[in-house]
Amino acid sequence: MIDTPVIRELIEALRCLPGVGPKSAQRMAYHLLEHGRPEARRLSQALAAAVEKVGRCQMCRTLSEESLCSVCGNAQRDPSQICVVETPADVYAVEQSAMYRGRYFVLLGRLSPLDGIGPEQLGLDLLERRLEQDEVKEVILATNATVEGEATAYYIAEMARARGIRTTRLAQGVPLGGELEYIDGGTLAHALVGRRDF
Amino acid sequence: MIDTPVIRELIEALRCLPGVGPKSAQRMAYHLLEHGRPEARRLSQALAAAVEKVGRCQMCRTLSEESLCSVCGNAQRDPSQICVVETPADVYAVEQSAMYRGRYFVLLGRLSPLDGIGPEQLGLDLLERRLEQDEVKEVILATNATVEGEATAYYIAEMARARGIRTTRLAQGVPLGGELEYIDGGTLAHALVGRRDF
Repeated sequence: MIDTPVIRELIEALRCLPGVGPKSAQRMAYHLLEHGRPEARRLSQALAAAVEKVGRCQMCRTLSEESLCSVCGNAQRDPSQICVVETPADVYAVEQSAMYRGRYFVLLGRLSPLDGIGPEQLGLDLLERRLEQDEVKEVILATNATVEGEATAYYIAEMARARGIRTTRLAQGVPLGGELEYIDGGTLAHALVGRRDF
Repeated sequence: MIDTPVIRELIEALRCLPGVGPKSAQRMAYHLLEHGRPEARRLSQALAAAVEKVGRCQMCRTLSEESLCSVCGNAQRDPSQICVVETPADVYAVEQSAMYRGRYFVLLGRLSPLDGIGPEQLGLDLLERRLEQDEVKEVILATNATVEGEATAYYIAEMARARGIRTTRLAQGVPLGGELEYIDGGTLAHALVGRRDF
């Protein structure tokens, strides 16, 4: 073994990155040490700063440095709509669409009784309080289109309906640029059922 | 934009890793902040330690924390053979073969006059001194099988021959498990020319 303990530790540590196996971790370590020491130092500092400074928004639970994230702290965003998503990355994805001007609630997971994830773990008490206090008129269910995501959406829809709040679900159908030939039957079935006048 | 400055900086910094584009960098950042904060802290420390502590072996120029790497500092390794490679990762690859008991010399590049990389940049003066001082009997040219790697091998072979030292080059041919159908013509040509009695 030619690697030094410090290099071995770097290779091991790089494997915490998603999608990075032993081979890529080794390649990354050698690359950084040969050609990217300033970048490696920058990454080291960025990681430390992120772990230390990034917490959660008190209102919607997305990742945030402040006690309120940039959406919840923005008076221009419509408080009558709450978009419920599973993760902060989903918030980012919806924001990228540039079509939404309301607020968010991040579950940080999905209902999964077998894994011990119930309503408390998803902060649904917090969501419930927002539904009661705020003048919320619509809950947009934007959990993933998976079995667990659907179950979670159903549970939250019941919560909102009990308070007379409108609930909507993201449309399902053919993605932009999608070729019918390559789209699975389930998606096509949803697209057919949800067809619209042209 | 929902990302905070600290998260944006982390995403930017992650892009220094080879093979990581904007999408994977974002995915990595969210993953670390959601599910891997202890791992992120460990990676931050490993990067800082590696940048600070890992230098070069004075004799063979591979990455090393000590002034001599574990090969050059090992009296068991045969000083009469020097295997010349382009990068520290190549040293690692040859060590993995477990077939080599000699020493190394790492060029940290290859001859490339157009990019301003000449014999000095490759530390060939250092190699020359080793050829003169040590009782070197064989130089194994293990530069890459590319045009520049071949040119570099040729240059070093001349240097060694001028001192009456035997030079060898890694065999070229069909890789282990290689199927002829998928092997390029150039490789097959080398394999034919270098064919051996069976």
